[in-house]
Formats: sequence, C-alpha cells, structure tokens
Amino acid sequence: MIFPNPALDCLLEMALEEDIGSGDITTEAIIGEDITSQAVLLVKEAGVLAGLPVARRVFELLGGISWESFYEDGDEVLEESQVARIHGPSRIILQGERLALNFLQRLSGIASMTRLMVKKVEPYGVRVVDTRKTTPLLRRLEKYAVIKGGGANHRFGLYDAVLIKDNHILAAGSIRRALSLVQKRVGHMVKIEVEAKNLEEVQEALAGGAHIILLDNMSTSDLWEAVKLINGRALTEASGNITADNIEAVARAGVDYISMGCLTHSVKALDISLNFC
Amino acid sequence: MIFPNPALDCLLEMALEEDIGSGDITTEAIIGEDITSQAVLLVKEAGVLAGLPVARRVFELLGGISWESFYEDGDEVLEESQVARIHGPSRIILQGERLALNFLQRLSGIASMTRLMVKKVEPYGVRVVDTRKTTPLLRRLEKYAVIKGGGANHRFGLYDAVLIKDNHILAAGSIRRALSLVQKRVGHMVKIEVEAKNLEEVQEALAGGAHIILLDNMSTSDLWEAVKLINGRALTEASGNITADNIEAVARAGVDYISMGCLTHSVKALDISLNFC
Amino acid sequence: MIFPNPALDCLLEMALEEDIGSGDITTEAIIGEDITSQAVLLVKEAGVLAGLPVARRVFELLGGISWESFYEDGDEVLEESQVARIHGPSRIILQGERLALNFLQRLSGIASMTRLMVKKVEPYGVRVVDTRKTTPLLRRLEKYAVIKGGGANHRFGLYDAVLIKDNHILAAGSIRRALSLVQKRVGHMVKIEVEAKNLEEVQEALAGGAHIILLDNMSTSDLWEAVKLINGRALTEASGNITADNIEAVARAGVDYISMGCLTHSVKALDISLNFC
Amino acid sequence: MIFPNPALDCLLEMALEEDIGSGDITTEAIIGEDITSQAVLLVKEAGVLAGLPVARRVFELLGGISWESFYEDGDEVLEESQVARIHGPSRIILQGERLALNFLQRLSGIASMTRLMVKKVEPYGVRVVDTRKTTPLLRRLEKYAVIKGGGANHRFGLYDAVLIKDNHILAAGSIRRALSLVQKRVGHMVKIEVEAKNLEEVQEALAGGAHIILLDNMSTSDLWEAVKLINGRALTEASGNITADNIEAVARAGVDYISMGCLTHSVKALDISLNFC
Amino acid sequence: MIFPNPALDCLLEMALEEDIGSGDITTEAIIGEDITSQAVLLVKEAGVLAGLPVARRVFELLGGISWESFYEDGDEVLEESQVARIHGPSRIILQGERLALNFLQRLSGIASMTRLMVKKVEPYGVRVVDTRKTTPLLRRLEKYAVIKGGGANHRFGLYDAVLIKDNHILAAGSIRRALSLVQKRVGHMVKIEVEAKNLEEVQEALAGGAHIILLDNMSTSDLWEAVKLINGRALTEASGNITADNIEAVARAGVDYISMGCLTHSVKALDISLNFC
Amino acid sequence: MIFPNPALDCLLEMALEEDIGSGDITTEAIIGEDITSQAVLLVKEAGVLAGLPVARRVFELLGGISWESFYEDGDEVLEESQVARIHGPSRIILQGERLALNFLQRLSGIASMTRLMVKKVEPYGVRVVDTRKTTPLLRRLEKYAVIKGGGANHRFGLYDAVLIKDNHILAAGSIRRALSLVQKRVGHMVKIEVEAKNLEEVQEALAGGAHIILLDNMSTSDLWEAVKLINGRALTEASGNITADNIEAVARAGVDYISMGCLTHSVKALDISLNFC
Repeated sequence: MIFPNPALDCLLEMALEEDIGSGDITTEAIIGEDITSQAVLLVKEAGVLAGLPVARRVFELLGGISWESFYEDGDEVLEESQVARIHGPSRIILQGERLALNFLQRLSGIASMTRLMVKKVEPYGVRVVDTRKTTPLLRRLEKYAVIKGGGANHRFGLYDAVLIKDNHILAAGSIRRALSLVQKRVGHMVKIEVEAKNLEEVQEALAGGAHIILLDNMSTSDLWEAVKLINGRALTEASGNITADNIEAVARAGVDYISMGCLTHSVKALDISLNFC
Repeated sequence: MIFPNPALDCLLEMALEEDIGSGDITTEAIIGEDITSQAVLLVKEAGVLAGLPVARRVFELLGGISWESFYEDGDEVLEESQVARIHGPSRIILQGERLALNFLQRLSGIASMTRLMVKKVEPYGVRVVDTRKTTPLLRRLEKYAVIKGGGANHRFGLYDAVLIKDNHILAAGSIRRALSLVQKRVGHMVKIEVEAKNLEEVQEALAGGAHIILLDNMSTSDLWEAVKLINGRALTEASGNITADNIEAVARAGVDYISMGCLTHSVKALDISLNFC
Repeated sequence: MIFPNPALDCLLEMALEEDIGSGDITTEAIIGEDITSQAVLLVKEAGVLAGLPVARRVFELLGGISWESFYEDGDEVLEESQVARIHGPSRIILQGERLALNFLQRLSGIASMTRLMVKKVEPYGVRVVDTRKTTPLLRRLEKYAVIKGGGANHRFGLYDAVLIKDNHILAAGSIRRALSLVQKRVGHMVKIEVEAKNLEEVQEALAGGAHIILLDNMSTSDLWEAVKLINGRALTEASGNITADNIEAVARAGVDYISMGCLTHSVKALDISLNFC
Repeated sequence: MIFPNPALDCLLEMALEEDIGSGDITTEAIIGEDITSQAVLLVKEAGVLAGLPVARRVFELLGGISWESFYEDGDEVLEESQVARIHGPSRIILQGERLALNFLQRLSGIASMTRLMVKKVEPYGVRVVDTRKTTPLLRRLEKYAVIKGGGANHRFGLYDAVLIKDNHILAAGSIRRALSLVQKRVGHMVKIEVEAKNLEEVQEALAGGAHIILLDNMSTSDLWEAVKLINGRALTEASGNITADNIEAVARAGVDYISMGCLTHSVKALDISLNFC
Repeated sequence: MIFPNPALDCLLEMALEEDIGSGDITTEAIIGEDITSQAVLLVKEAGVLAGLPVARRVFELLGGISWESFYEDGDEVLEESQVARIHGPSRIILQGERLALNFLQRLSGIASMTRLMVKKVEPYGVRVVDTRKTTPLLRRLEKYAVIKGGGANHRFGLYDAVLIKDNHILAAGSIRRALSLVQKRVGHMVKIEVEAKNLEEVQEALAGGAHIILLDNMSTSDLWEAVKLINGRALTEASGNITADNIEAVARAGVDYISMGCLTHSVKALDISLNFC
Repeated sequence: MIFPNPALDCLLEMALEEDIGSGDITTEAIIGEDITSQAVLLVKEAGVLAGLPVARRVFELLGGISWESFYEDGDEVLEESQVARIHGPSRIILQGERLALNFLQRLSGIASMTRLMVKKVEPYGVRVVDTRKTTPLLRRLEKYAVIKGGGANHRFGLYDAVLIKDNHILAAGSIRRALSLVQKRVGHMVKIEVEAKNLEEVQEALAGGAHIILLDNMSTSDLWEAVKLINGRALTEASGNITADNIEAVARAGVDYISMGCLTHSVKALDISLNFC
C-alpha cells in the first residue's frame, strides 16, 4: 500500500463523515478557528506500530496540519513512547483525534499480535499469514498491518486466487474433478489451493496438481504425516483454531505457512492516546 | 436501526465489492449456476446474537435466497446452536458466506461482551454504555450490537451531543467558561456532558449546569465522593480503563452509567460457521 | 460548520456537475484559457450574509482563483455592498458564478429572514429556531445560515434528539407511555421533547419528565397558560404558523423558543450578482 | 422525467440519509415494527401539485408501502384536498413523512407560482420559462415542476445550449465575434442565444445569426421596439426582475418567452401535511 | 472540456482503483519509495493526439509528478515522436503508466480516425460529427477527442437535443404529429432533428419545421435529391454505414454533416508507449 | 462474473445517467407512458455473442421489461440472427436501447475477435489471453468477453499477480534480485511472471524461480529457442505485436500462452441493432 492514495482518501472521508457529521459542536463552540496546538501521539503499552500514515492522512484531509513521526510502521515501541508530534489548528486536531486513533490503535493491535506469532514460529522457518476474516471495508488496511507485523498476506478476496473448500469439493464430486474444473477455467496467473481434512485428501490434492494444500484442523501428528507425504511437491498451510498456545507445535510439524483468523477478527487495540502539550 | 435500509445496503455493497471484486473464481469454475444448497448458521460457543438481519441482507443483495431465523438479535444462545437456515443458489451462498459471518461474528462478539458487563452491574441499577472507539465505518452497526447486548448508546459522533474534555477546558480557560460558551451556542435539543478528573472539577461542572458529568479515571473512593457530591443534580458516568474485573466496584459507587471503549475497540468475534447440509 | 470540509466538497462537486455537465460550451468557445478577470460579488438589497465560504469554495474547486472578502457570514450589509472580490481565469469565474450565487443568495435569504425574526423577539429573551423543513440535501448549510442569522438549531434529523408527536402518542396510547418507552430506550445523551396541543397534554408531558414541551398551534392565551403551568420545569417551544406578523405576540407569552418552518421552506433569495470589473 | 429512475433514487437515498442518519430514535422506541397505519396527504391551500411520484418513491425506498393517488402532478387542487392515501408500516410512514413533504411542498410551490404566471400571459401567447437559478442538486426536479405548472424549460445547464452574456461579449470584443466563435465551435444540435441590453445589441445579434435574443432588463417600450425590429427572425425572450405585477405588461410587448428566476429561487412551499387516519 | 475538473477526477479515481486495487505488488516489492525516474511518452505511429491532459492528470492524482508536454491535443505527430516527459517517484510512474496510456491511446485513436475523415470531406465544406455510439462512461472524453480530431459533436445524450427516429414516428403516427408533439413540449433552447429514410419523409420533416434532417442510409443519388429538395431550409446530416471508402461520395452530395458511429465504437488505439530514460 | 451483481448495477446506473441525464426529451414528448412495444435484438453480421446479461440488466434497471434470449454469451451466430426479444413500455425500451447496444456490440466485438484468434492457435494447444490494455472502467466486462470468446484472462490489475518488467529489473539491478525481492514480499497465493527480451534473460528468470516467463517481442526463432531452453520448467507466454497474421507462427513455436492487447484496445464493434416489431 502506497500512501496516500485516492482509495484510502475516499475511505477516510466516509469515516470522517461518520464521526463529524454536521459538525463538532463542542469544539466549534469553545475553540476559535485561529487557535493552534501541538499534540503528541503516545503509545501507552509496548507493541508494534501500524497505521501512522493513515493517522497522518486523517489530519491532512481536515486541513493544514504539520506532522512529524519518530517511528515507522513496523517498528516495535516500548510503553510510553511518543510516536509522532502534530501541530496545527486545535479544531482540526480535535476533530481528527478519535478517527486517527481508532485506525492507529486497531492496526497496531493487529501488527502487535502478528509480531508475537511471527516470533514464535521464526525458528522453524514458518510464515504467519492472514485470512479473509477481516473487518468489512478495512481489509486492505488490516492486511497491510499484518505485513507490518512481519506476517504475509493470504488472498485478498474471492477474486485473486483459488481456494477449493469442502463445499466446492462436494459440489464437484471429488477434489480431482474440482481441480480439473478450476484448471480449465482460471488463467495462468492464478494460484490454486485445496483444503484437505485428512491424508487421503492431501494425496488427492497433490495428484490433482494443487499449488498449495491447506491442512485444515489437523492434529499435530497428522500435520507431520501430511508434510512428509507432500514432501515439497506443494506448499503447505496449516489452519484452524491455531493460537499463541499451540502455534509452535504446529510450526514444528514443518508446514510452510500458518494462517490465523484471530489476527484480524479478534483484535485487541493497542493503547494509544493523543495528548495536547 | 430498521432493517433493511438504503444506508446499510450501500455499506454492504461496498463490502461485497471488497470481498468478491471481479468474481469468485473458485465457485464460478466449479459450481453451476443452477445448483442450489441448504446451509445453516451454527454458533459454536455460547453468546448473545447480533447482526442476523445484516447477515440475511448480505445474501438478499446477492440474489434469490430464502432465510429462516430461529433466534433474534439479543437472544442468548448455547454453543452448537443453529441460528438460521438459508436456501438458494450455491454460488450465492458461497459468495456471501464470509461477509455475512464477518458481520455476524463481530456484532455478536460485541453483544456478548456487553451482556457480560450488563449482568455484572444490573444489581446496582447501573447502565453500560459504549463510546466513539468503534471501528471506522461500522459505528451504527456496532452501537446497534451494544443495544442488543443490553447496553445503551453514548453519543453517535461529534455532532449529536456535547462532551467537554480537558483540551476544551484548557482552551476555554475553565470548565465554567467552556460550559457558558457551549450553552450560548448549541440548541436546546442538545445534552451537555463535562469530563471531570477530580472533585473540584465535578463541583465546577455542577455549578455550570452540565447535564452529565463524566468521572474520568477516578479511584473508586473518588467515585463515591463524586456521586455523593453530585447527589442527583446531574447524571454521572464513570469512564477509563474499566474492565470485567473492576466494573462491579465502579458500579457499587453509585454512578448512573459506565462507558467502556473495549466493548467495540477490542472485540473477540463469536465463533460462528456456515455449514452446508 | 468548519470550512472547507470533505462533506461540503462532495456536495459542491455534485452541484458543479449538475450545472456544468459535459462543459460550459459558451465559455469554452469564446474565452481562451489564459484570459483572467476580476469580479465582485455585489449585494443589491440590504440583508444578512451567509454562505461566503461556500461561494469561495465553489471557485476553489474549479481551479486557481484568489478570493478576498470584505464581510463575514452573519454581517448585515446595505444594498449595493461589494462583499467579495475574486480574481483568476475568466473561464473558472464564469463556470462557478451561477452555483456560487445560488448558494449565497439562498443562504443569505435564510439568514436575513432569521435576523428579522430574531430582532422582533430579542426584547423578550426568546430564541428563534429552525425545523426539519429544509431543502433536501442542504440541511446542514441551511441550519448554518439560521445560526448566522442569529437563530439556533432544532434537531438535525430524526437521529439526534427525540420529538414525540401526536402519531407517536396515538401509537403508544398516552404521552406518559410514549415518554416511558423512549426513556427506557434512548441513551443519556439525548434530549426528549413532547408535542402538546393543549394544557392537559402539557400537564402529562411535564409529569412524564419531558425536557422540552412543544406547544403546537396554541392560541396566545393558551401559550400564556402553558408557560405558567410549566413554570420552568421544562423548556418551552412554540410552533405552528408563526409569521413575522404574530411572532411578537407569541414571544410575549413567555416561551423559551419559537420554531419556524418558513425560515427554510419558503426562502426569498437575497439579490446578489457577480459583476466583472 | 420518467419515474422512478436510478438517478432520482440516488438523490432520495442521500436525502433519506440526511434526515434519518443513524435512525429515527423516537419512532424506534415507541412504535413496534408490526404496527401499520393509514395516512393521507392533505393539501391545505389551493395550488398546483408537483412531486407526487417523488413523495411516493420516498416511501417505496423505505419499504413496503401501498400508495393511491387521487390527483396527478399538474392538477389544480382546492384547499383541504386529500391528494393521496398511503398504507403500510407506521415506522416507514413516520420516517419518510418529512422528506416526502419537503419535496412535495417545494415542487408544488414552484408549480403553483408558475401556473399563476402562465395564466397571466396565456392570452398573449407568451410562454413562461425557468432559469438556472434553481436549488443546487434539485434542478431536474424543479424544472420538472415548472413543466407541471405549465411553463417550459430554459437550458438545463451550461452544457446543453449557448447563452452569450455580457462578459462573453466583452471578452470576444463584440457580439458578432462572440457569435462567430461559438458557431465555429458548437455542433449543429445546439441552439444559440444572445443577451442584448439595447436595440443596437439586438441588431447585432440578429445580424450574427442568433437563434434567440434575450432582451435583458429592457423597459416595456424598448421591448416593443425590439420585438418589432426582430420581426420573427429570431425568438425573443424577456428577462430581468419580472414579477407577477409587471408580467402582463411585458407579455403585451409581444415577446415569445419570459424567463423568471423567482419561480425557483424564491419558492413559497405549498402547505401540505400528512395526517394519520 | 476544461482540465482538470472534479468530474474527470472522479472518473480517473475509479479507473485507478480498477487497475491498482489493493496495490501494485510488483512495484512495491522491488522499488523503494524514494527512487525517482524520468520517462517519455513515445508515439510509435503517425496520428493525432488527444488525451494529454488526461494522461497528465492520472499521474497528478497519484502524487508528485512533474510533466512537460511537447505537443498539444489536436496536434499531428509523426511516428517515433516524444510527446511528453515526466519526472517523479518511479512507483508513481509505474502505477499510472497503463491507465495513462489506455486513455491516451484510445483518445488519440479517435482523434486520428476523425482527422482522416475530416480531411477527406474538407474540400466539400462538410463537417464530420460523432454519435451516441461511444464507450459507456467515456462519452465526454471521446467526444472531446472527436473535436480534437477536427470533427464536431452531435448531441451528448438523450437530454440535450431531439432526434425523432422511426420508432417515435411509428408511435406518433406520422412525422408531422411527432414534430408537433415535440414542439409543444420541449423548450426554445432545444434543436429538433428528424430521421428520414426517403424523400417523402424528408418532405414531411421539412413541412413540420425540423431544424435538421437526418438522411438515414440513403443512396448517394437519394442524398443528392434530398439536399436539392431541402435547399437550405433545414440542416442536413447523412448517416448510416459511412466509411473511409464512401465518405467522399456522400460529401459530394452536398450534405452539411456526416455522422459516423465508427469514430467511437470501433477505435484502433494509437500505438504509444512510456519509456524510462 | 455472476449476473446481476451490485458492482455491475452501479456501473450501469452511471452509464444510464451519462446517456439519459435529465431525461429522454424526444421520447417523453412523443410516447405515452402506457404504450408498450416488442423489439428484437438483431445481429447483422456473423460473430460471437457477449454481453447479453448486461444488455438485459440495462432494461431491468429502467423498469418492467420482459426479456427472452435465444442465444447465450459465447454462442456463435450467423448474420441476421435474432438473439433476444424484449417486451415492455416503449419509453423504457427507447431509453435503454443505445446503452444496451453499446455494451453488447463492444463485448461481442471482443468475443468475436478472441474466437478468431483462439481458432487459429487451437491446433497447437496454445491459449489466447488478454492484457491490461482494456477500456478504463470496463475491464471486468471486457475480460469476461474474452472468456466468452474462448480466451483466458491474464491478471486483472497490478494487485493480483506479479509481472516483473524491464523497469523493475532496471531498478532492482538484475532479474535475479527483482525476483528475490518479490519472493520475499508477496504471499504464497501469488504467481510471479518475468518479462524476458532475450535468451539470457530467460535463463536468469528460470534460475530465479519465475512461474511464468513472458517472451517479449521475440522473433519466431528466438521463441523456439526459448521454449526449448525452458523445457516445461516455467509456463511461457509470447507477447508483443501479435496479430491475426502472425499468431500461428508464434503458436507453432510451442509457447503455452499468447497475450494480445488488441483484443481489447482496438475492438471492432459487432453490428447489432434493436428493431421494434
């Protein structure tokens, strides 16, 4: 994601409208339009930053604010770190504060959780990836935060890669036939992944030419077996109820990727505040 | 919120575009347009439902789906509860599945957490309310989920009620002057709340005629004192780092409202899946 | 309203599209893109200005125009007053002229009419407020013009305050029950107003705890009675066919607010023109 | 204008959002979703109707309403006429009421004023036309109302016809040159009108081949002269501060068209209410 | 068309979203955000340019690019001509390249084809005009390109001029009645054209007062006859399967205008590339 | 692409606005709203159909039209084939006619040209694919038409697959390094293609692990060499000025895919008309 860009601006303008609507009646009543302030963004707990250019853009869209960052997205910060300083009309700062923080806290929460997982599996050469279980309308930003946390992105939607799931297999009659239908239809620029619940399905997906095999909700021992069976002939991805507690066990089984819905569907916002100074 | 409505449809159409984009290439390749299926929405852990009409609308916008609910938003369900059954073209079901779940899981997560808090403070006659720390673009839906969880809504944005915070007070010079400026400017249909950090500020807000006094980050003993001091002359709202652990202590202090950002900024999605049958 | 802002820009861009569409064919044929002009905005009859920042923004959105104002919104001007001077590409000035004037004339018409009413009731300490009878899509701007005329704003829509009208009362069975239903449902940041047609209803609204009582279409003598009965226990608002002719009589009855639909639904545009010089 | 159409729906959805926003909190609290009502649209003063299909569409976009009209746009109605009856969910009726009326009252106000003018000039075979002095974003609807009042439409914007005004003439050096530049540039499907302030300019416009000559702010005697001079070689349009008082005198001068900004820039809304029954 | 303008920007932003979507993953991976480049737009075959301001605007919307043109829209260029040079962040150039070229190549293709036709008929004083057979959503730009090629524009849509076709005539019963219905309904700023398939219909259109007569799919000899018959009493336009091969023969018949759908519905893109240097 | 869908509807509504704008003034004047007609879509030259559901949707969005197709997208039709019959209000048919045809003719033109190419290379087991040289805003529809013509789709935008071009290689220093940067950054669901201008670059792309190698503008003999060198270790795609004349020679070289910009950037519309009957 390159900042700023028209699509992000459009999203931010809708979000500003959601929060400001017909006007910030408190601020307009109390603070004159010529008053200026300085404020700092203060991270109150240790974590990984993501969303600084988004927060900055919120203020820019509202008017003439100067912004200085002391960190970049992806940086790890300690608690009580000043991450940016802004200066400009107080009205603008107060109007943009909540939205800037809502983005920054959420995205940093995602990056922080991702980094935690990444560190756990790094020794095993495994990569952590996201899913489509993102917040509606914020997928690009949330997947950007996963990258900044050190993870990688799974597909962005139903349109950019094939993932054959159980219902597709059911409809097609077999993994083999599902794969064959897909191979005939999609172009050569598209990767094909098949979800497999057991070793038999792994075998079939392999035989059918899947590029990636998603090992869904398998026990650790099945994961070991599957990896051995596949033996590098396809990429492997473990998925299904993987948490901070069991991720290392999964990684040890030798899969290439571990995908985790919780990175984006159950985010704990990083505690960040904007303080006038 | 009345379902369906044009504003929600607009939001859902953008979210469908985000997920489907140029097409569900997997489904289009494998599943013929005449194939139909039946599927159930299965809640896999106990919780409170919110978002069923949203999930339903996702499918309706995609085409001819029939929908039957066995529960309503606000209902408590046990784990492994079937909450709805849908029937229609398999392509439609598969295309809408993820988005419907992303909404339903998030909103039910909010309702479930809210209900938990509500139950803790019910004996004390205290109401749980939300904040503006919502997901950008989803505020209406998230505040709807808070209602379904048994909570109440704080203001919807900067536009519909006054909340005088420390920075406003700083700019105005005093709580008294901030209140006076606001009272002159905003219409008679607007409630006015003042944030107070200590008893002195409480006193000043009271004297200035605030309708509600937000007792910010106060110790439990200060809360007791503040409530006593206010003595029904204004509504009281406690706020600041209130969690499941300390909420009862806060409630016992006798405040009227407790507002909690975590209801919406750090949601744990309720585990729900869509199963073909 | 803070100028400029993204929501206003969006409105103005739609309005420019409405007027310019595929292009100003007259101007493009006759006037070269390098020709510049100076022009003044001339108010041709006495009145109160509103909409100068809107007019200015129209030109800014079209390109490189310099703008100098000699007055501010809310100022009273005499006939034949030059209120602003603009300089820039003639094409831009000609393309923006009509839209800038359409806004400025309408908003100034609202401000002028409001000021007239405000002056009539000022001696009685009564405030003039608007209604929801505004031009579709222009409500924010029209309510802004009411402010600039010296009036205050009633609620902005159905979402930001409660107004219980006869149909709600009918459906609920009684004012008491309607109030009770509302009090249970809406949050603590919301004001509640009840429409009363006679003293009995006033009594009931008062007993039910309404914050404001709207005295609808009452005779002057009933207004006197109602105000006496309420005696400061709720705010009072007179409404219904109040005009320049009878507004003083209403104000004398001692109500706090007078709301007038005609401020926005039957506006006489202030006569303003743009003259090249 | 053909009803309904996607462009109108888009406009109405924005207008509904403006009024309803996050929800009709009064109605949602008091009126159950299964309650239905019947209501009538009652015109309280004599006038000409315009906007019935718009009002109807407002309710349709909100949900399942049945609508029966007793009149059509363009009909003259007496005071206290029931013009339509609607039936459906009370919530929907209450949510749509204000917007439907805001459109219907404004458009009927335009149609009524237009009809008044049309009747005054009918004996002289003169047609009344509108201008671009319409409410931003509502031009199509307002020009539709002029038609329903018996008037005709001037151009819809800067894009669909040429009107050479004084500033164009100034820039071109002469009417002749302005006309020549335009004739070279615009296609054969475009009409060309020139504004003339005196007989000399009329002469020049005529010589240059203008299709229509706008006689701007001329005295009645100059109008007589101009019409005589033109003698059918171009269409004639009188414009500039024409009111109900002087319109007949202008018409008697023999012009073909009279254009009036006040039809749309200074509308008096027709008094219409929606009554439950 | 005046560049830039809000409506064009809106179109370009949608088109950028179409091409860039969630990000240019190739460029973001390989090219740092601080790298800058210089590139030239190179026309590889002779033709007429149209769309330079559009291409420029594509880059401007993406960020800080400097642009220098060596030609203007409407200029004829030889093969291998450098038409513009751009300088700025390499990421921006690479992200905008394809969209800028897609517009520039298409519009220049239209201008080139138009110029070819214009030159063929110039000796006969005939003008080449476009039709409504344009690419959906690009009509304004394509009609702009026709102008730059030396052609003129037919109507822009169904809204800005009348064209009575066979189906209208059928519905009305006769050309005469169709014309009369239209003359009663449309304003004085609208031109009226009638499609005639034979001399009898030409006669009727003439008698009915059509401003322009469209001679549809007539043989060359019929065209001669029609022109003679009309004898300057209406403008004449030939249409229907006119190509580079037969256009001169048609022109020789003495019509005023020749309209060609192929100018816009079957465009051959001009070969243009963007080369880094 | 599944029809209908919200994104397509949005596109069509914008396109209808472009053509109809403030109204079809001809049709509204002449044809009553109760008149109905029957019409057929008649293909006047042999070709391959694409866009029937789009054309149908145009009419559906305008109102109550019944539609019966005699062919499906992808079918080859002879000249003078009736492909669909529609029935409904004449006004609706006339208003939708041009837009429906503009889509149907363009998309069928693409499908027809694609089919021509596909047939030429079918004997060699080569697939024809499109490019990003599509009409802005119509990419999805045009790529859909390529599928219906028998071709396959290359990537949809910059977001869904990697294509490393010369400028990327230049910036990275070498193909090897460009590949390595990309492999580190993009997820496992993304295919990676490298553009190679000569055998040396082919060698390097192969060594670096490219999934697909684009053989750009190579002579036929170089293509033979490249295919031999690659020997199935990557997919091969020939590109660059390939036309109906030389496509077989290219196919014979043994590449897997041939991509052609002309399929979409230089379309000849299929001749189709709508005839009332």
